[in-house]
Amino acid sequence: MGVTYGTLPEIAEPVLGADDIVAEVRAVLDAQVADWNAGNIRGFMNGYSRSDSLRFISNGTMRTGWQNSLYAYVRNYPDQASMGTLSFEDLHVQVLSPDAVLVVGRYRLVRDDDEPLGLFSLIVVKEDDGWRIIHDHTSSSP
Amino acid sequence: MGVTYGTLPEIAEPVLGADDIVAEVRAVLDAQVADWNAGNIRGFMNGYSRSDSLRFISNGTMRTGWQNSLYAYVRNYPDQASMGTLSFEDLHVQVLSPDAVLVVGRYRLVRDDDEPLGLFSLIVVKEDDGWRIIHDHTSSSP
Repeated sequence: MGVTYGTLPEIAEPVLGADDIVAEVRAVLDAQVADWNAGNIRGFMNGYSRSDSLRFISNGTMRTGWQNSLYAYVRNYPDQASMGTLSFEDLHVQVLSPDAVLVVGRYRLVRDDDEPLGLFSLIVVKEDDGWRIIHDHTSSSP
Repeated sequence: MGVTYGTLPEIAEPVLGADDIVAEVRAVLDAQVADWNAGNIRGFMNGYSRSDSLRFISNGTMRTGWQNSLYAYVRNYPDQASMGTLSFEDLHVQVLSPDAVLVVGRYRLVRDDDEPLGLFSLIVVKEDDGWRIIHDHTSSSP
């Protein structure tokens, strides 16, 4: 038993290989970045599970629920200037099971007056309609 | 496919139920707290995977590797007064698969002069010798 699934368990029906899982999860994150940079926060929030049990920890404070997280984003990023240009860097996707993935990475926001960055840890699970983030722990870098 | 495994998949050999997994993982964390409060940092570090790929994110900074994490703890907590008395609160254990678990909780350190607290997200996986943390993202509460 190792830390990651090198290969997925053999079952009768065809399943995604680990490489396919990584590609699918990265596509969700790529879509988030594209939506953010188009000023579309609701689109960005599509990457998150539309659930009351979504957990979002940011610098030692926890919010729960998709709707609360959306409200917080809208409050904290009222216009496209405050949203700036987002990029994700150093993404590492670790497959924990055929339907649960850990993603670790760095975010960077380029804005006119500053360039905040930090690290995030995401748990992404396969829901009926695709891969969705169910847990986000983000902390700003000093 | 939902977000959590309500019950584990049926396979031929007996496996732990979700409640048993939660109990085993909580026992690892309880042992960590007991070791910390006995001034035993190496014992505390037994909860972590003894691996170079261990990731430890603390307030926007990432360390990798068990040995580096141990060094950082020893440096940051040079004596028992600085270690204080640790407690974990509001622990939530979410079973992602039969051998991967997400733990979310709050830590509190009671010391003579201050009482730092914060939130942590842990990925704990079942290794050959038991459940071990492979990923820790911790952020101090304001």
